[in-house]
Parts: sequence; structure tokens; C-alpha cells
Amino acid sequence: MELTRLISVLFFLLVITVGSSASPQHWRKKRVREPCKKLVFYFHDIIYNGHNSKNATSAIVGTPAWGNRTILAGQNHFGDLVVFDDPITLDNNLHSPPVGRAQGFYVYDKKEIFTAWLGFSFVFNSTHHRGSINFAGADPLMNKTRDISVIGGTGDFFMTRGVATLSTDAFEGEVYFRLRADINLFECW
Amino acid sequence: MELTRLISVLFFLLVITVGSSASPQHWRKKRVREPCKKLVFYFHDIIYNGHNSKNATSAIVGTPAWGNRTILAGQNHFGDLVVFDDPITLDNNLHSPPVGRAQGFYVYDKKEIFTAWLGFSFVFNSTHHRGSINFAGADPLMNKTRDISVIGGTGDFFMTRGVATLSTDAFEGEVYFRLRADINLFECW
Amino acid sequence: MELTRLISVLFFLLVITVGSSASPQHWRKKRVREPCKKLVFYFHDIIYNGHNSKNATSAIVGTPAWGNRTILAGQNHFGDLVVFDDPITLDNNLHSPPVGRAQGFYVYDKKEIFTAWLGFSFVFNSTHHRGSINFAGADPLMNKTRDISVIGGTGDFFMTRGVATLSTDAFEGEVYFRLRADINLFECW
Repeated sequence: MELTRLISVLFFLLVITVGSSASPQHWRKKRVREPCKKLVFYFHDIIYNGHNSKNATSAIVGTPAWGNRTILAGQNHFGDLVVFDDPITLDNNLHSPPVGRAQGFYVYDKKEIFTAWLGFSFVFNSTHHRGSINFAGADPLMNKTRDISVIGGTGDFFMTRGVATLSTDAFEGEVYFRLRADINLFECW
Repeated sequence: MELTRLISVLFFLLVITVGSSASPQHWRKKRVREPCKKLVFYFHDIIYNGHNSKNATSAIVGTPAWGNRTILAGQNHFGDLVVFDDPITLDNNLHSPPVGRAQGFYVYDKKEIFTAWLGFSFVFNSTHHRGSINFAGADPLMNKTRDISVIGGTGDFFMTRGVATLSTDAFEGEVYFRLRADINLFECW
Repeated sequence: MELTRLISVLFFLLVITVGSSASPQHWRKKRVREPCKKLVFYFHDIIYNGHNSKNATSAIVGTPAWGNRTILAGQNHFGDLVVFDDPITLDNNLHSPPVGRAQGFYVYDKKEIFTAWLGFSFVFNSTHHRGSINFAGADPLMNKTRDISVIGGTGDFFMTRGVATLSTDAFEGEVYFRLRADINLFECW
């Protein structure tokens, strides 16, 4: 009797197991929104304005017809395309030792308010991290926090995917800003 | 006797189950090409031409040496880089209430025919959808339909991936065009 | 006795199986770093310099304030944005029959050394391959090999992800370079 009940239980468990393994639909539902890795960094952008070529970490390289490349254009900088190579630090101090570089571009893409589209990488080559994390997405700057996509990675971040939450940590005129990036990776290999 | 046969069956099922769980190779083969979500949107692009600053939703911000920023360049616009903030609608009417904005850039990248490379986001902030879908890929404009990649998403579209099929729904001179985007998501979290 | 032991073993296996299926954490660890597809291509970039409009496959379309669009800018070309439509070949001969086109853009993004950020696609439309592979990432040109991300694909490369290792196979002045791309795909549908 005991034996028969035990076998019944086993069979029931088996059916559940086989079912869940065979159905990718089901598998999708099982994915949890727990990050497999969490990282926090700051990066610092100093835009070239015609007078700061020594310190500048970024430059305007495309503008609309009404713009120029040493002053961000009117209409919320719509159309200005900026290339950057910004130091990444572990805290919010521009002068802390950089642990990597944020490299890529952003483009202001709305006339009515400040908003941008970003394509860039965090490039690490230190004892802490080696490899790169690649990002893309919309950055509505006026929101306190903005989510962009982690679209891939290499080295220590091989094949990773996730979401990075950006927030503006400081903003000084139109020359310097500092972003905080809370990176949550949900696919780790 | 019955019992022994039952146990044999159980064991056989177990072997299959354990086998299929342990092999990522096998797992790959099980993926189905059924979208977990399907969406259809239209977006509307009005390029700045020097006279339409009020209505324009996009502007040329980069050109080759032989181009300028108020007229799309010769040689199939090769090298023209356009930044856009286009309204997204549910039907093909430019004047329908927008449900979001398509924001990013495209660049014409071939001298012999019209073709472009796109990096952009659909940004939603309404009762229907909240969040963003990020896209990248080649857009050979002369083909009736063109597939680009959904490379990530945030909010309602957290971590999504898929394919978007673009088709040119209208094309008026070199100022207005309307694209239809059939978005098929194959990874939903 | 025998029967009881067999059932115990079965139960033990079941627990393992159920456990491993239910835990996405565990599933993550099982992923193997074996590519599901390996591809090698070469692509050839001839930058427009004001005199080679017939042969050029790329052009500078954005520059910093101190640059122009027929000569790559000083400071390691920082800020130069280049649009390209390069032939892809199976070997390192520029004159081999192209099997596809590499289309997109790169932007030099560092003042101190040569490094770039790339967003582009391999577009195939032949008997060998039909579809596209989309790439994004940082390209520190002075390294012998550089890894960028495969962020998606269409057609034969539907939904693919992976890593491409780029190496500079030839470099002639500031007009021609040839890259070798070793593409390793780790997600195949």
C-alpha cells in the first residue's frame, strides 16, 4: 500500500517535471527578475566648448543646420551629436582614479525637452574588471531615473544582458555633467 | 509484475527528463519561433528642409563633404545622418493621437541604392504601454519589407528581444515618410 | 528490498531533476561557452579623401570643430564619424567576389590613442547566407584583437547573439584598411 502511494507521488512529480522541461512557453514564465550581477559606476562628461581642449572628454561632431560645434544648439540641443570618452569612477568624484572609460556617442533628439539617444560601451582593463559592457537606448534626461538596455558584453561580461538605470548626479552649466549608472545584469554566462 | 513494469516506465521517463535538462544543446533546439508578443505601430518622419521648422520631426546633422544639412545629398543620400523624434500612431494617420515617440537616428549608407542603418527606441508613457523598445539594424529601403533587431527593452518590455519588420507605408518627396513596424517579440520576461 | 532501493534511487534522481529545472540560477550555470556557429569574414574600407569618390566605400560625415570631412582629424581622429558600405569577402583579397556588405558607422572616440565605437550590420543576400547580423561595441584599434557584441540577427541569423573578434588585417595610410571578423555565435534559434 505504502509502496503504491509512493509510486503515485513519484509519477505525479515526474509528470510535472517532464511537462516543465518540454515547454519553452513555461520556461519563459520561470525567469526571475533577480539580477545575477549588480554594479554601480559614475561617469564624467566635459564637453569641448572651444576653450577647454585640454580637459574636454567629449565633442560635438554633428549639428543641425542651425547649430555649431562649440555651443550646444537651441531647441534643447535637438540634433547635436556628441562623441565621448569619459572616465568611469567608483564614486562621484571626478578626480578619483578611473576604473575604465565610457566610450561612444549620444544625440539630443527632441526639440521640446532634453532627451537623448545613447550608444556606448564601458571599457574595463584593470585588475577589477576586464572586458566591456555595451549599452543602447533612449535617455529622457529630465526624468530622475532612466532605463537603458545592456545589449551585450565581452570578457568578464561575456554575452551579458540587462538594464542600466541612469541618473544625473551633477550638472554644471552646459560643460560638465556626471551620470550614475546602476547596472543590473539578468543574463550572466 | 505490474509494479516492476511501472517502475521501468518511471525510470525511462526519468532518464529522458534528466537528459533533456542537462544538455543546453538540446535546450537550444527546443526554442520555438512563436512570438510571445506581437505589436503593430506606424511612425511618421518629417525632415527639416529649411522651411518647415515648425512641423519637422527630424533633421540632417551629418553629411559627407559634398552634402549640406537642408537638402538630402546626392548618390542616394549616402552619408546623411538624420536625428529624429517621430510620433508613433496606432493607424496610418499622421494626425491620430500619438501613443509614443520613435527617437534615435538613421544614416544613409550606400551610394548605389537607398539603404540606411538605424539605431532608435520606441518610447511609451501612456496607459497602454510604459517603457521602451530598442532597435538596431540595416534597413534596405527599396525592399518591400526589411527586418531589424529588437535588441532590448525596459519597463513593460523589460529585457525583450525580437525582430521588427519595417515597411514603407507612404513616401512623399524627400520630406515625409511613414513606416509601419510589425514587432514580433520572441523573448518576454 | 531491491524494489525499495530502486525506488529510493528513483526518488533521489527526481529530486535532483526537479530542483535543477526549477532554479534559473542553476540553469544559468549550465550554459556552455561552445559556439553554435562560427564564421570568418573580411571587410574592406576605403575612406573618401576628396580624390577617390569612385572607389571610396566610406565617408567622414561628422567631425569635431577642428576637423574637416576629407582628412581624418588630428588627436587620433577623435570625433570623426564615418559611414560605410564595405564589401565582405571570404578571404583577404579586396578583389574577391563580395558575399555581402558591411553597413553602418564608426566614430573615433579617444584623443590619446586610436579607438572607435562601431554600430553596423553584415547584410547577406546570396545562396550562402540570407539575412543580417547586427554588431555594436568598442573597438580599441591598437589591440591585436578586439571583441564586440553580436546584438541580434535576422533571416538565417534570426535572433542570434554572440561575440565577434576583430583584427586589423591590413592598414594602408589613412585610406584603406581591412578587418578580419571571427564571428562566434552562442545563441542560435
